[in-house]
Amino acid sequence: MIITVTPNPAVDVTYTVPALHPGQVHRVTAVARRFGGKGLNVARVLHALGNQVIATGLAGGSAADRLAADLHTAGIGSCFIPALPDIRTTVTVHGDDGTTTSFWEPGFAPDEVAAAVDALTDRVSSLLVDATAVVVSGSLPPRVDRDLPARLVATASRAGVPAVVDVEGEPLIRAASAGRAVLMPNRDELLRLALGDAAPAGRSIHTVVSEPIVRVWLAATALCGRGAVAVVTTLGADGMLACTRDGAWLARPPMTVSGNATGAGDAAAAAVAAALAAGGPGPDDWPSILCDAVALSASAVTRPVAGEVDLHLYRSWRELVTVEALEGR
Amino acid sequence: MIITVTPNPAVDVTYTVPALHPGQVHRVTAVARRFGGKGLNVARVLHALGNQVIATGLAGGSAADRLAADLHTAGIGSCFIPALPDIRTTVTVHGDDGTTTSFWEPGFAPDEVAAAVDALTDRVSSLLVDATAVVVSGSLPPRVDRDLPARLVATASRAGVPAVVDVEGEPLIRAASAGRAVLMPNRDELLRLALGDAAPAGRSIHTVVSEPIVRVWLAATALCGRGAVAVVTTLGADGMLACTRDGAWLARPPMTVSGNATGAGDAAAAAVAAALAAGGPGPDDWPSILCDAVALSASAVTRPVAGEVDLHLYRSWRELVTVEALEGR
Repeated sequence: MIITVTPNPAVDVTYTVPALHPGQVHRVTAVARRFGGKGLNVARVLHALGNQVIATGLAGGSAADRLAADLHTAGIGSCFIPALPDIRTTVTVHGDDGTTTSFWEPGFAPDEVAAAVDALTDRVSSLLVDATAVVVSGSLPPRVDRDLPARLVATASRAGVPAVVDVEGEPLIRAASAGRAVLMPNRDELLRLALGDAAPAGRSIHTVVSEPIVRVWLAATALCGRGAVAVVTTLGADGMLACTRDGAWLARPPMTVSGNATGAGDAAAAAVAAALAAGGPGPDDWPSILCDAVALSASAVTRPVAGEVDLHLYRSWRELVTVEALEGR
Repeated sequence: MIITVTPNPAVDVTYTVPALHPGQVHRVTAVARRFGGKGLNVARVLHALGNQVIATGLAGGSAADRLAADLHTAGIGSCFIPALPDIRTTVTVHGDDGTTTSFWEPGFAPDEVAAAVDALTDRVSSLLVDATAVVVSGSLPPRVDRDLPARLVATASRAGVPAVVDVEGEPLIRAASAGRAVLMPNRDELLRLALGDAAPAGRSIHTVVSEPIVRVWLAATALCGRGAVAVVTTLGADGMLACTRDGAWLARPPMTVSGNATGAGDAAAAAVAAALAAGGPGPDDWPSILCDAVALSASAVTRPVAGEVDLHLYRSWRELVTVEALEGR
């Protein structure tokens, strides 16, 4: 069983308008509502891949029961801690002209912050008995300790369970040194960490790659050097770069896929978590894991809604992803 | 007591962002939520003016109890019909760069459309015993009979109670001939009705006004000719134009007020309803009513939130509004 932790879930509201004109009133022609947040997207993709999943995190307010019912309908068990006054909303405006514009609420602080963090840590701890992997994804509610992902990684590591962490900023850096974690920032998030650009001692790239890829590699090796098992950086249409203590690999998709990029990183996290849960990864497994992650992520882009993947496309594209070892062994 | 009818209330959500960039993700820096919808704004302004108000309309879902509690806290009694599956949301995005961009959900259709309309009509009918005026404001939920405002006007007229109607399109036209109603479209809504631009028989403007004002006067006299007591058209910074069977008057504010125009028309409707409730209007009362409406409306523009007015500004500006009779008597 794989545990997904969503500390700050959301009601994802999608509006369709003819076009977005700043300063104007827009009569919305179609409204769609579903529960989201990166961890829930990961849970949905893991479920689609055939994994047993349990979703936890922080929730609360009048929407919490609907969240549980919604996941139950999707075939996903859940046990959120009812510590928040309400569940935040994200609004995405799709213009018929092709633009997608989003507004993300920060969320609601728990009434009792320390108690909420303790309760979630205890909940994850009790679920670890049956778990093969833990995924911690997305933002934290206001006032919640930036150490929460690191605490969850440490708790999982003590239980011998590997963790995948897709969070931003200081919480990501703290998680790196907390235990057995694969960190999954996207390129912009990784570079914003500003971990320095000195090449790590004894390591160098032996192939020809573009300067932006070199910058990602430098930042990823620096982050990995803080103690992570691996840093897997999503590069959008350029694929993914995995960096471990043993080397680095760049995987490129077979073609550029246009569509909805919102859930692409979550599909990649699901692929990595599924591989970890299956017993990997050894040093030789990363090329194969990257093929899975890139193909699954690309298939997610073809779907209109985050948290969905196209398994047929995934399987056919998987064979077409190219992986290159950047460092010598 | 004045009855306000809000057939399609809303949760008004306001987001603050640094600036609105179509196609981008925006992290919202501040979130405000309150219940809105034009009829509720009118109720709040009437209450601020010292009128006893009861708010009714259609509501439902998990937000309905909070709507009643919110109005109760504001000192306004309410008795909404719980016929909707939920209350819609409107999202307004304030950019720190000064732009205001809105997204209005259409709302939720009642589960039982005819029963909902009958129940609301019965509710208004039972409240009319103690009422001095009725205000019907704002949009109708999907699938609700476009005749609803006209039915409410007819019901009120049979009880000898005057009505103010601020709705758009076909429902406004139908309300014109339904009974004793003052119709309050804004300029754009009035001109969209496309009622023709022939000067009414025996009437003409005897002062010099701009061509856009002449067009509004032509449309307003045409709409008034369908049977309304008066058509009061809000002209934004240009003031208001009242058109009755006896003449037409143009009122101009003392200065251009910049700010939040969202609730300006609702403040004007409240001013007219308060005048109707006080026993007016005779043919000589319209200049005075327009002064009230223009000053109250301008004071609403200075407030950040629709449904609020500044009573001090209202009283001082009231003396400075200029009113001009457009037609001879």
